[in-house]
Amino acid sequence: MPERLGPPRDTPLFGRVALVGLGLIGSSIARATQRLKLAGTLVAIDNSEAVVARVRDLGIADEATTDVAAGVKDADLVILCVPVGACGAVAEAMGPSLKPGCIVSDVGSVKTSVINQVQPHLPAGVHLVPAHPVAGTEHSGPDAGFATLFFNRWCILTPPEGADEAAVARVNAFWQTLGSKVEVMTAQHHDLVLAITSHVPHLIAYNIVGTAADLETVTQGEVIKFSAGGFRDFTRIAASDPTMWRDIFLHNKEAVLEMLGRLNEDIALLARAIRWGEGDKLFDLFTRTRAIRRGIISEGQETAEPDFGRRREGQ
Amino acid sequence: MPERLGPPRDTPLFGRVALVGLGLIGSSIARATQRLKLAGTLVAIDNSEAVVARVRDLGIADEATTDVAAGVKDADLVILCVPVGACGAVAEAMGPSLKPGCIVSDVGSVKTSVINQVQPHLPAGVHLVPAHPVAGTEHSGPDAGFATLFFNRWCILTPPEGADEAAVARVNAFWQTLGSKVEVMTAQHHDLVLAITSHVPHLIAYNIVGTAADLETVTQGEVIKFSAGGFRDFTRIAASDPTMWRDIFLHNKEAVLEMLGRLNEDIALLARAIRWGEGDKLFDLFTRTRAIRRGIISEGQETAEPDFGRRREGQ
Repeated sequence: MPERLGPPRDTPLFGRVALVGLGLIGSSIARATQRLKLAGTLVAIDNSEAVVARVRDLGIADEATTDVAAGVKDADLVILCVPVGACGAVAEAMGPSLKPGCIVSDVGSVKTSVINQVQPHLPAGVHLVPAHPVAGTEHSGPDAGFATLFFNRWCILTPPEGADEAAVARVNAFWQTLGSKVEVMTAQHHDLVLAITSHVPHLIAYNIVGTAADLETVTQGEVIKFSAGGFRDFTRIAASDPTMWRDIFLHNKEAVLEMLGRLNEDIALLARAIRWGEGDKLFDLFTRTRAIRRGIISEGQETAEPDFGRRREGQ
Repeated sequence: MPERLGPPRDTPLFGRVALVGLGLIGSSIARATQRLKLAGTLVAIDNSEAVVARVRDLGIADEATTDVAAGVKDADLVILCVPVGACGAVAEAMGPSLKPGCIVSDVGSVKTSVINQVQPHLPAGVHLVPAHPVAGTEHSGPDAGFATLFFNRWCILTPPEGADEAAVARVNAFWQTLGSKVEVMTAQHHDLVLAITSHVPHLIAYNIVGTAADLETVTQGEVIKFSAGGFRDFTRIAASDPTMWRDIFLHNKEAVLEMLGRLNEDIALLARAIRWGEGDKLFDLFTRTRAIRRGIISEGQETAEPDFGRRREGQ
């Protein structure tokens, strides 16, 4: 495949950039920031000594520390890449060290809760510009990241009312340089959209994999063996980071429960159609859903190759 | 990737092989049968003139016809590759033309119903050996097939009680030559196992994609744009052949409704945990489901590459 990330910048976009949390997303931002020379100095902050050591070994930041207050000092941009539930505590710990004019952003999959957690801890003159890069894999940790993770993916910005426009523009430019397409919406709307496109699918996947593991009529070995019929696609997203996902559900409770309620109504209709042998209703739905798949493929968010282009032995 | 299908056979496994239905599965069997020289003569039968013409153009069978009674004449092996709901009608049409000693098999995703539909139409001396290759993609039709579709995938045989052992052994050998791993179980057990590993996941995927399309608070454009967060994995299986899947649900009603009931109980527990903020319950489930994914990968039914190894632009 062609290399599509642009060339390194002559002058960095930000002087000092601090990333808090060097998991899949944080370490991917670190790699992209380095490769594109987006930061004068890149600081990696993580509360795990092991992660900090690994970041040093990987050489994906200029400095690495477990001390968030020291790490964010003099930073022009701080990006929180921690589970959504940890944002408040990190903001509290780093707030007093932030310099005026600093931009604080994040990558959380829930936005209203992050704003509510973080905003109260930011001193005057510090700008909050929440962001959510809609990208990821089922793998976690600093070794799982890669510089092109965000390429051709959407990044949603949810600036609170009255947010500093220049700060929003700079965060926008940052993500576009990483290859993302940027969209701006309210935090409330974001949380609804992501509930259906991400949170509920994950919950459903976790649920079906859990249910399958608990059956007494079908063994776990059989579930694993015969998973190629469809089940294994669900296991991929049910293998995602447990802490991150626990926090997402707890912090986007209303939207997730609302969407789940609708799903349940619709599945009840489907179950009834099956019970009463109403094949036409099933056929109509199954035909309609094909069109959405085609939309996702033509929008460039997916490959058209069969089976996601999974490589096959023997082919 | 290395070529893993074996060399062509010196002597074919069967004299005359007839495939009824040349969709994804039928045309894949045709290609593999040709490549491995498993049949003295390979006959393709399809009720669609367009499919028969396409099969001739592709050159994936020795003969091609829309006439099932004529096509199965003198066949040593007939494999029904039609939607589950069509098996009875095909069996009725071809029954009188089958020669004694002929083996009739199929590839349906439901087995009890297929046996009940087909068995009454088979003359004495014709052996029914139902089979289900657990393999496929979301694409359909004679152009979608490929010879290695069954390689390293399971094929489940569900011979009825008292089935001819030699016939079962020959069908077993056929699938093993195609690269499949063969397992034998009762039709009843098969239908339960597949309900959870395949049928219910498809139903859930169809359902969530349908629900998402109907929301008034989130546009379909937004669902498509931000699908990379998890939703797009569901759309793949919700793009599968509507007729095939309608028939599966109608013909495996009891097992599907039973598994769906269990899922609903479990999702109610999860919803409650979210509502009451019981993070530990969520975390425990999300940790447990990771282990199943690892099992599927180590059993060789899946790639360990992130995101199914989807190729990315820019990487």
